[in-house]
Amino acid sequence: MLIDYHAKCIFNFKYQSGNITLNLPTLSDIQQAESRIREAVHRTPVLRSRQVDERTGCRVYFKCENFQRVGAFKFRGASNAVFSLSEEDSKNGVATHSSGNHAQAIALAAKMKNIPAYIVMPENSPEVKKRAVAGYGAEITFCEPTQQAREETLEKVVENTGSTFIHPYNDPRIIAGQGTSALELLQDYPDTEIILAPVGGGGLASGTAIAACGMKPEVKVIGCEPEIADDAYLSFKTGELQPSKNTQTVADGLRTGLGELTFACLQKHLHSIVTVSEEEIVSAMRYIWERMNIIIEASCAVPVAALFNDKIEDVKGKNVAIIITGGNVDLDHLPWE
Amino acid sequence: MLIDYHAKCIFNFKYQSGNITLNLPTLSDIQQAESRIREAVHRTPVLRSRQVDERTGCRVYFKCENFQRVGAFKFRGASNAVFSLSEEDSKNGVATHSSGNHAQAIALAAKMKNIPAYIVMPENSPEVKKRAVAGYGAEITFCEPTQQAREETLEKVVENTGSTFIHPYNDPRIIAGQGTSALELLQDYPDTEIILAPVGGGGLASGTAIAACGMKPEVKVIGCEPEIADDAYLSFKTGELQPSKNTQTVADGLRTGLGELTFACLQKHLHSIVTVSEEEIVSAMRYIWERMNIIIEASCAVPVAALFNDKIEDVKGKNVAIIITGGNVDLDHLPWE
Repeated sequence: MLIDYHAKCIFNFKYQSGNITLNLPTLSDIQQAESRIREAVHRTPVLRSRQVDERTGCRVYFKCENFQRVGAFKFRGASNAVFSLSEEDSKNGVATHSSGNHAQAIALAAKMKNIPAYIVMPENSPEVKKRAVAGYGAEITFCEPTQQAREETLEKVVENTGSTFIHPYNDPRIIAGQGTSALELLQDYPDTEIILAPVGGGGLASGTAIAACGMKPEVKVIGCEPEIADDAYLSFKTGELQPSKNTQTVADGLRTGLGELTFACLQKHLHSIVTVSEEEIVSAMRYIWERMNIIIEASCAVPVAALFNDKIEDVKGKNVAIIITGGNVDLDHLPWE
Repeated sequence: MLIDYHAKCIFNFKYQSGNITLNLPTLSDIQQAESRIREAVHRTPVLRSRQVDERTGCRVYFKCENFQRVGAFKFRGASNAVFSLSEEDSKNGVATHSSGNHAQAIALAAKMKNIPAYIVMPENSPEVKKRAVAGYGAEITFCEPTQQAREETLEKVVENTGSTFIHPYNDPRIIAGQGTSALELLQDYPDTEIILAPVGGGGLASGTAIAACGMKPEVKVIGCEPEIADDAYLSFKTGELQPSKNTQTVADGLRTGLGELTFACLQKHLHSIVTVSEEEIVSAMRYIWERMNIIIEASCAVPVAALFNDKIEDVKGKNVAIIITGGNVDLDHLPWE
């Protein structure tokens, strides 16, 4: 099932300037990302909960990217990608399509570099995210809420502005940036034995798995996915990249499918992928809100649900870290209402 | 307006064993409380938010008692009171009436001391609080949701069990315990210039003001209250203890009135009291949820609202701490719905 990634994983990125060919990111890329973005990102805290430890029989480390800038880990990858651009590539700005956290992250990173950001957002994006993106000074172009409309609109924006497209996950600079969260975690909590991360596009899971394999090969990184959006699970199982399922899982950050690059990273470095039901996700999310008094988005309730519902093998007594991806939730539409 | 508290503030506490007479608590009481409860409580973190600093023109330190055990500062006072009891007084357990955080706090402190806890709760208390109190092994007696029913029911419980009543705020051990939050804050952030705390029964505000006056007399401690529950404001202004207003402010922890002891503490040590509207409270609460991704209860959105709406004089450029009292919120009934 594992592929020879050095041979296979050479990609042309349609929207990047020139035809850059890329290998899978490595721990060294993550370390470089860490020093590149260190001044811009928050070194996020790790929280623990006595009640969670009692419930699970583990020591659980919550690496809280909901306290990251823009409220999500996405700022790590976005700032690494934007700060990596050459002066030449920077001058026409950056562009992306995103319904949420990646949009805000690119907008803020561009603002910090003082370059334009062009964001294509589905018109049904949560109000709070539209306001935040606009608040960072980005130019928003709204589109129909379909993948096709997003891509076509983006293509036009890039054509008109000469800006550089930054893909939300299928980009080695993004993956390396996302991996800095696990790098911090393993520096601060070197006794971590298992890391759980949700899998959507796979940027975070890839970066996390690369960081862990590089720093502590004995650490198992396990991806967690909604049952009704289990394309990564199926891809991992069959060894063939499966399309996303276009489902309406409550974990809205995980509706997207893997990219070729993230799939290759996961095949190389991930231990396994487990899935959970929608009910398990909502229940875990609410539990964390009520017991820990932190706001976490449904996407990162997925690994919590996996731990709560005995989906992780051989976990009792272990030190288990969960990457809490973010806390950007539309407070007018909570999933338990 | 200031009273000679040493002369005036000698109280008999109806439910305490014997007729104990008490002076106002001092910094030394708070320091003793701190060492008594240190192993039991969390030393809560201070969070900051770039967006809040930008909005207010201050450096704002959020002292996060929502990350305290039982999700609120109340555990500080409750554990200090319970751990202060003599072995003789402990053996029949402790009792209180409370619709929420104090109930949980007493229940947990009693559990840690391995003594019984008898809690009188209004039958309309939030489900999450009923479950939590029961979860700590306390015996709950439900009553009608009136002050009279609470007191009468409690009296019966105390009579039947021989337990010791621990008042939620009008008790020097409670006040000293609540003051340990400000003590930690001023140890960790000695450049604090102003501290904002909500005023309900006045236990937290009293402890905070005593700690600050003792440790750093130049620090102003300002109480914050809902406009529609401004009995402490009026008491402070008139120099006469005013009854609570029986209003339904969204800041449900602040519906209660001051006690004689807390009123005396506030008269002696508090700088001033300011008030905010219900809309200002809800808006500030939602802002903190959205921008900081922490769950705070409406009561501690009151000082946030005071800062956001220019109720605090001479505040620009200052280092302002806010005691975030807790995060126990009924997620089925959010105030912006």
